[in-house]
Amino acid sequence: MGKLLIVGTVAFDAIETPFGKTDKILGGAATFIGLAASQFDVDSAIVSVVGEDFPKEYLDLFTSRNIDISSLEIVEGGKTFYWKGKYHNDLNSRDTLVTDLNVLANFDPVVPKGYKNPDVVMLGNLHPNIQLSVIDQLEKRPKLIILDTMNFWMDHTLDELLTVIKEIDVITINDEEARQLTGEYSLVKAAQKIFEMGPKYVVIKKGEHGALLFHEDEVFFAPALPLKEVFDPTGAGDTFAGGFSGYLTDTNDISFENMKNAVIHGSNLASFCVERFGTERMVGLKRKDIMKRLHQFKALTQFDIELQ
Amino acid sequence: MGKLLIVGTVAFDAIETPFGKTDKILGGAATFIGLAASQFDVDSAIVSVVGEDFPKEYLDLFTSRNIDISSLEIVEGGKTFYWKGKYHNDLNSRDTLVTDLNVLANFDPVVPKGYKNPDVVMLGNLHPNIQLSVIDQLEKRPKLIILDTMNFWMDHTLDELLTVIKEIDVITINDEEARQLTGEYSLVKAAQKIFEMGPKYVVIKKGEHGALLFHEDEVFFAPALPLKEVFDPTGAGDTFAGGFSGYLTDTNDISFENMKNAVIHGSNLASFCVERFGTERMVGLKRKDIMKRLHQFKALTQFDIELQ
Repeated sequence: MGKLLIVGTVAFDAIETPFGKTDKILGGAATFIGLAASQFDVDSAIVSVVGEDFPKEYLDLFTSRNIDISSLEIVEGGKTFYWKGKYHNDLNSRDTLVTDLNVLANFDPVVPKGYKNPDVVMLGNLHPNIQLSVIDQLEKRPKLIILDTMNFWMDHTLDELLTVIKEIDVITINDEEARQLTGEYSLVKAAQKIFEMGPKYVVIKKGEHGALLFHEDEVFFAPALPLKEVFDPTGAGDTFAGGFSGYLTDTNDISFENMKNAVIHGSNLASFCVERFGTERMVGLKRKDIMKRLHQFKALTQFDIELQ
Repeated sequence: MGKLLIVGTVAFDAIETPFGKTDKILGGAATFIGLAASQFDVDSAIVSVVGEDFPKEYLDLFTSRNIDISSLEIVEGGKTFYWKGKYHNDLNSRDTLVTDLNVLANFDPVVPKGYKNPDVVMLGNLHPNIQLSVIDQLEKRPKLIILDTMNFWMDHTLDELLTVIKEIDVITINDEEARQLTGEYSLVKAAQKIFEMGPKYVVIKKGEHGALLFHEDEVFFAPALPLKEVFDPTGAGDTFAGGFSGYLTDTNDISFENMKNAVIHGSNLASFCVERFGTERMVGLKRKDIMKRLHQFKALTQFDIELQ
């Protein structure tokens, strides 16, 4: 079975949307990535850190999903990273109300022994130095290193971010971030500039407007499934990354054709994530539901024009 | 050969984009619809009005494309409808600088004799009373009546607009207009509300984010082709409508499956339209270029996941 190494935050989120609000619930990039990837036949491990306040039931959730948490450090007396945010009415933008780094401030990642030679590495959104440290601990170059990041690191640690971007194969980034990183409004031009920074594959996430996959002169597009209601967008991008990386690890095929399928699987899983608060929908998600919705994705996008 | 009746403005446009500006050039909804539809094997006629200032070379352009202009009224001493607009830097929004209705103010449309029994009617963006008058002049119900409209008519003539919407089969409308018309942010919910107003098919155009086709519980999505540069968006929506209606008239098949193909053909033609100012790209467009880009659309959207 393929091995997927996941790095990213494990956190408490408090979320307010037009539809309601939550107290501190389970969140974090690595959490959403791990839950999504666990829908595939993979061995995975999470490298992250939490505080002593992190509930055992959440740890049990990871292990019940075959996720190795031996390198999920639990800091004695420490407090888990906490993010509180409020979404605007259109759910396309949000205000961050609280960011308490807590144990994340001094996090020194350690790759577990069994994962120094993984097939795929998924570097979730986190300080680029932590992402780089994980790459440095690997015994040999994995088949694929995928990196997710955000505008915060472009604003505050651009040099470090560019250093790690040089080392990776696939970057996943949203449209505004791609524009910020490259100074190009056209996403086609932005992708080309990012190629020059190192990655051979660029995934540009456009939220409700879908995702684009670029590689050399090729481009593939997956729409977001049109939903009656988006309830809470938190974790959708990470869930996409988890589905994308989990599928590629499972199928052990990093051809562009198979990467298209990975984008569809990522989009499919993300369409569930947004239906409830936090991880709620992902925890209860069944293979049957996933398959049913893949059929919807096919009906949504496939057409039959005879071409000469 | 199928007959397509087109109603809409024939106009002078003066356009400013971040890339340059034009003097008065050929524009108008019926112009773009007619040029796009003429890429298919259809007989078409334009019902519209221009002034004495309208150049003969533009009239010749229409007839060279097998477009019947016997009901393109030329008002003696009158001036052609004139629109001047300036696009913002992202090309997603624009300011209207001048709207001179001129001969359009007193336009009384007359359907040509040979087109009182068309296969498909494409009602381009125009006062809803003119759209309704055209429907009233038909001898029997055509296979399909398609209507395009915009927020201006929702703001100023909502009752008249709702009256004509009741009479049609397909509405094409952009995302913000769909939200304005229904009060629903979710496009899925908006489409359902529009079904209740009359149309059985709803096409929601999202510009660079593609187009959605809704019918009963089914939905289909076509992306816009990712372009290095969008030069001038003027006429893209009308070109989409021309490709959509032209293809359906040509194939004489209004099944949902074939309507998917029509959405792809419309999106494909629109991707050319935005590459140059006004009608410039559409006038020189060759079948070979169209076919080549259809292959790109297929590569962009088609995937091969085995489903159980």
